[in-house]
Amino acid sequence: MSDPARRGLLITFEGPEGSGKSTLIRGLAARLEALGRPVVTTREPGGTPVGERIRDVLLDPALTELRPETELLLMVASRAQLVREVVRPALAAGRIVLCDRFADASVAYQGAGRELGRRRVDALNDFALEGATPDLTLLCLLPPAAGRQRCGDRDPDRLERETAAFHERVYAAYLAMAVSGDPRFRTLDATAPPAGQVEQALAHLRGLEHDLLTGL
Amino acid sequence: MSDPARRGLLITFEGPEGSGKSTLIRGLAARLEALGRPVVTTREPGGTPVGERIRDVLLDPALTELRPETELLLMVASRAQLVREVVRPALAAGRIVLCDRFADASVAYQGAGRELGRRRVDALNDFALEGATPDLTLLCLLPPAAGRQRCGDRDPDRLERETAAFHERVYAAYLAMAVSGDPRFRTLDATAPPAGQVEQALAHLRGLEHDLLTGL
Repeated sequence: MSDPARRGLLITFEGPEGSGKSTLIRGLAARLEALGRPVVTTREPGGTPVGERIRDVLLDPALTELRPETELLLMVASRAQLVREVVRPALAAGRIVLCDRFADASVAYQGAGRELGRRRVDALNDFALEGATPDLTLLCLLPPAAGRQRCGDRDPDRLERETAAFHERVYAAYLAMAVSGDPRFRTLDATAPPAGQVEQALAHLRGLEHDLLTGL
Repeated sequence: MSDPARRGLLITFEGPEGSGKSTLIRGLAARLEALGRPVVTTREPGGTPVGERIRDVLLDPALTELRPETELLLMVASRAQLVREVVRPALAAGRIVLCDRFADASVAYQGAGRELGRRRVDALNDFALEGATPDLTLLCLLPPAAGRQRCGDRDPDRLERETAAFHERVYAAYLAMAVSGDPRFRTLDATAPPAGQVEQALAHLRGLEHDLLTGL
């Protein structure tokens, strides 16, 4: 299937638990909207009625028998739905899509964290995305121990309950993306104050050279 | 990953809506247990706590936006869980597993019915099964119009609500398996009375030459 006219921008945000992605996305969306840009914000897993139902399954701490392969397939199912129901129509309509986690999250969490390996994750992501790759991926870097501390108060979900070793593998995968040389990846200092992070994100957006970002 | 010791048997039952698979499985399981054979019955999508949650999503008529690719990934997610949590342990323990729908259902429903194509379904099934292929697959053949009539009274689920053309494509895929020459496939006349269908199934089982079936 060929990708429809892609006049918008897909910006994804990746990082460990507690790295402040959702706060950053809210701040950046408000800023872009104030500048007159059409913005759509969404998240993974979830972002659609089907995806939110899948999210409930994925994060339910009661489902202790959920296997790594099942987890990967459910993540990719939510993603396939999000791409078709939200991301592609928004890109065709010329909007800026800000997505809290996307394909790279499966590389980090299921590929590295669950040790399913890169090749199988890539094959499934290809099936889900059908060409809807991000224009820019902002890596919100925060060491796992600091992220856990930030999440301290709330009840941990099924993934947050994973071992420290699991979260170290996830973080190492994000660091590997940061130093991969792929220009799609840009890093953000997640220990900076929220307003500073929005400024860092805007600076990365200005580097994209796209009609939607002219005069930003 | 290599398949663990496989001392049991995996028998799957395929066929359109209303073809009487669940009645047949109950009858066959009772008969095998009366003959002292250890039997496990299960179904797809579902068969595990995770899988039943996935089933709820797949069959919910309210989720009208659920896309073909999402449907396939959810079916395969339920299957990956079933293989690891139920099928493989039962085979390793020397049991006869009777499964109401399995990998071939995705070939028929998502590959043919949703027109996603055989190649993509096969690749995903390979990932879910990791070698847990059925020893025997009984195709319960009943033309779609007759199946719809049998389902007449109850509220149709999301898949049962599909068009007649969809169900014709599914049935054509099952007929293609029946005439494929693959000895794994055996056909059953789903218009026969239930007791007669159990006898037909037992006759096919006797053809397998397996310790669990000696003297059946």
